[in-house]
Amino acid sequence: MKPEERLQLDRMFNPRGLALFGGISTPVSFGQLILLSQIRYGFKGRLYPISSRGGEIAGLKIYRSLREVEGPVDLAAISVPARAVPQVLRECLDKGVAVAQIHSSGFVEAGEQGAALESEILKIAAQGIRVVGPNCFGIHSPRGGITFLPGFDFSTEPGPVAMISQSGGVATDLAHEAPALGLALSKVVSFGNGCDLDARDFMEYLADDPETGYMAAYLEGIRDGRGFLEILKRVTREKPVVIWKGGLSPLGARAALSHTGSMGGEAGIWKGALAQAGAVTVKGLDEMLDTLVALRYLKNPGPRLALLGGGGAIGVFASDLAHRQGLQIPAFSRGTQKRLRNYFPTPGNSMANPLDTGSPALPPDTVRALAEEILTHEPVDVLVMVVLVRTLEKEVPAFYTMNGLEPPGAGSYLRELLDPLTILKRETGREIVMVFENRAHLPEEVEVEKISRKMQQRYQSQGIPVYPSAERALRGISGAVAAMRFMEHRRGRRISHGPPGSPD
Amino acid sequence: MKPEERLQLDRMFNPRGLALFGGISTPVSFGQLILLSQIRYGFKGRLYPISSRGGEIAGLKIYRSLREVEGPVDLAAISVPARAVPQVLRECLDKGVAVAQIHSSGFVEAGEQGAALESEILKIAAQGIRVVGPNCFGIHSPRGGITFLPGFDFSTEPGPVAMISQSGGVATDLAHEAPALGLALSKVVSFGNGCDLDARDFMEYLADDPETGYMAAYLEGIRDGRGFLEILKRVTREKPVVIWKGGLSPLGARAALSHTGSMGGEAGIWKGALAQAGAVTVKGLDEMLDTLVALRYLKNPGPRLALLGGGGAIGVFASDLAHRQGLQIPAFSRGTQKRLRNYFPTPGNSMANPLDTGSPALPPDTVRALAEEILTHEPVDVLVMVVLVRTLEKEVPAFYTMNGLEPPGAGSYLRELLDPLTILKRETGREIVMVFENRAHLPEEVEVEKISRKMQQRYQSQGIPVYPSAERALRGISGAVAAMRFMEHRRGRRISHGPPGSPD
Repeated sequence: MKPEERLQLDRMFNPRGLALFGGISTPVSFGQLILLSQIRYGFKGRLYPISSRGGEIAGLKIYRSLREVEGPVDLAAISVPARAVPQVLRECLDKGVAVAQIHSSGFVEAGEQGAALESEILKIAAQGIRVVGPNCFGIHSPRGGITFLPGFDFSTEPGPVAMISQSGGVATDLAHEAPALGLALSKVVSFGNGCDLDARDFMEYLADDPETGYMAAYLEGIRDGRGFLEILKRVTREKPVVIWKGGLSPLGARAALSHTGSMGGEAGIWKGALAQAGAVTVKGLDEMLDTLVALRYLKNPGPRLALLGGGGAIGVFASDLAHRQGLQIPAFSRGTQKRLRNYFPTPGNSMANPLDTGSPALPPDTVRALAEEILTHEPVDVLVMVVLVRTLEKEVPAFYTMNGLEPPGAGSYLRELLDPLTILKRETGREIVMVFENRAHLPEEVEVEKISRKMQQRYQSQGIPVYPSAERALRGISGAVAAMRFMEHRRGRRISHGPPGSPD
Repeated sequence: MKPEERLQLDRMFNPRGLALFGGISTPVSFGQLILLSQIRYGFKGRLYPISSRGGEIAGLKIYRSLREVEGPVDLAAISVPARAVPQVLRECLDKGVAVAQIHSSGFVEAGEQGAALESEILKIAAQGIRVVGPNCFGIHSPRGGITFLPGFDFSTEPGPVAMISQSGGVATDLAHEAPALGLALSKVVSFGNGCDLDARDFMEYLADDPETGYMAAYLEGIRDGRGFLEILKRVTREKPVVIWKGGLSPLGARAALSHTGSMGGEAGIWKGALAQAGAVTVKGLDEMLDTLVALRYLKNPGPRLALLGGGGAIGVFASDLAHRQGLQIPAFSRGTQKRLRNYFPTPGNSMANPLDTGSPALPPDTVRALAEEILTHEPVDVLVMVVLVRTLEKEVPAFYTMNGLEPPGAGSYLRELLDPLTILKRETGREIVMVFENRAHLPEEVEVEKISRKMQQRYQSQGIPVYPSAERALRGISGAVAAMRFMEHRRGRRISHGPPGSPD
């Protein structure tokens, strides 16, 4: 990427001036929505709504033409009807706008006529303006104080996670979910048809973006496959990349064609090529989030797990899962098993790993002692602890009450457990992952969910990730392990663990 | 199953008298917990807590010995230490108790000594008392008013779903989740080691149980594999059966051995054999629930789906998913696409199927018209509608407010949509499945979850199931389609659709 190209994208993510075309005076239009969004999101640059009708909106002057604008305009957001886009784009070119986002649909994804329009756009772009889209939401940049994703409460906290997406919906979902998972975003781009700037360009830009630590991508089609894979190989040496390739089934390919005009491609070929280029592949947004969470919290992810929790099937289930995810649950040594056994006066719990604690509410001191025993004596990379939140927050208090005792306060068990686990994590340098499983889904049980979410925030703030199920926890760990291996491999280092995990 | 054996199990599920051994006077013990549970659950028969210390508990006389009890005792719940179990079991045999549940652990799952104890138990059982367990929670029978699953708020409403489980945890999770999904239970059995009564017996009993419409099973090992499969073949002719076989990986097999002393068995062999016997196999509790929900609500499940929703990636993603699940998303005819197009003035939405509505909040009237268009003219079995609850409940109201308008009330959109969809479902005889996707997971966003749950209850009460994601909806539909095909196949009918779906 040439320095001047990089500069154009720098300006796009931190524009001094932003011009908006389309729907400015039309209530409940996309154009008006994105205008209001910038104000609400706290954009610090200048906003220039443009409409031939003139007037005012939200206290801002509406310019009749971009030519009337005096200050620099780095980014234009265009949501006029498709056929009017070339004209607007030419105005932007004349003004020296760095990048134009074309939100409008009706281009290559809509058939022949649209394809012709898209060609016209490309010709204009070639004269010195870059295009994001068409048929996209555009960018989201907390540091730049702008967002074109639909929503009014995105987090403004910048962080290391970047995402590029051919679907605005997927990008928006990720941006909405991210804060609850403690994932702060650097840059998000929904680029739709990607007629000019595409996956390859954004990947290349983000590779050298100091703000971005790791990347996620949702892609439906990739035009310059070879070029993209070359860039990808370079990126994955330094930054983990998680890719969800949509449209890999015959059905999905048809849908992708009408969504972003993309050719889906052949599943087997893509999977292999992406893996070889060092990207972790996932099959959906939740799986992508699971992996990003593991990458965010686990400094030293590894495939050897210890599992701790109540309910024996967690053991069997989790073991089956671990196998499917290419992870290991090595049996504890006899010595460790013997020492663990001391904490369980009655039989019935397996001490082997997973450690079935029987009771879902062992005293926090005991849990800490068990975890310490394991992390001190066993060569495991990650301790996964499964907590039955419903049991803690509904059954245990009910049982106390029935026995005439004062029930423990809401969330008190998980609160008490946090300090010991945090200290243990720090002292041993090992990773701890929590699973808060909640089987209380009636409307009147939503309080359990609320407590669970509050506690999740606390754990995350101490560097301990929380997943809603063992399945998702193991899936996330597996993704992070694969990413780290790929990175070691691409850096030419010796691979420290067995063969890469092979999620099906 | 002989009539007298059936009678023994009938009595077990509806006991006139219930004797409880172990932990009676020990606060916070499992024995005391299950005693209190019966009172709270509303058991109508007689409760006989037995402890040599005598006295009273919860207003009930504690008998010093079972011999002191005069009335009939159909069921005994035993949670004394393993070594004391044989003696108690003999007392039960002498008293003429029909079935003894042995909750205690420390038998074959605990090694050689435990195995010897388990043999002793079997010898006593052979003399005329049946045993559930050991190392189990036991039964849950809303009609009988008893539950030995740990929890104090299980639904008391009886219904058609039966479950047998070698894991008490899995059985408990299912019973906890069921009410939120509108799944009412007939009988649940957690049978742990299954030394006497086992999967085969319960399956045979439930096959002819008029209360049970369909069945779920979590199994770690099956002793008499051939006998079990024979029974299964008979059952699946009349009742769908969903089986989660745990311990199929080498890791899981080891865990199963120490959990219930079960031999996991070889994955490929089990999968094939279960499918041939007509059971739908799943890989976890959530997948099991997804399938049960589809079986519960869909009278005529079929593999041909129409998808309707905002956000194009839902289309691509859902199409990929459908392919993986062996389902079809047939393209709509040109005529239908043309008529659908009338509802969308601007381009950008695919009319092909999935129908990408662009806006996630189309007016309910429009949604109804679109759905009617599809269900009237297209040969689809199930219409799946994806709703972004977060957008409806957070973005839309915020946008109204920003425009100086009165925001719509909480849940009002989904409430308005329900009547039209219910009528449409009735008039067309087709199935409708909703997906309420909620990407609001911060503690302060829990209100969105609450609204979503309330609306879910309403939809379910109108016969429309609600799933939290497209992935889970399609997984459930796929399971139900497979179950119905298996049933047709086993009844010797012509198979109406292509080859059975093959979830990976």
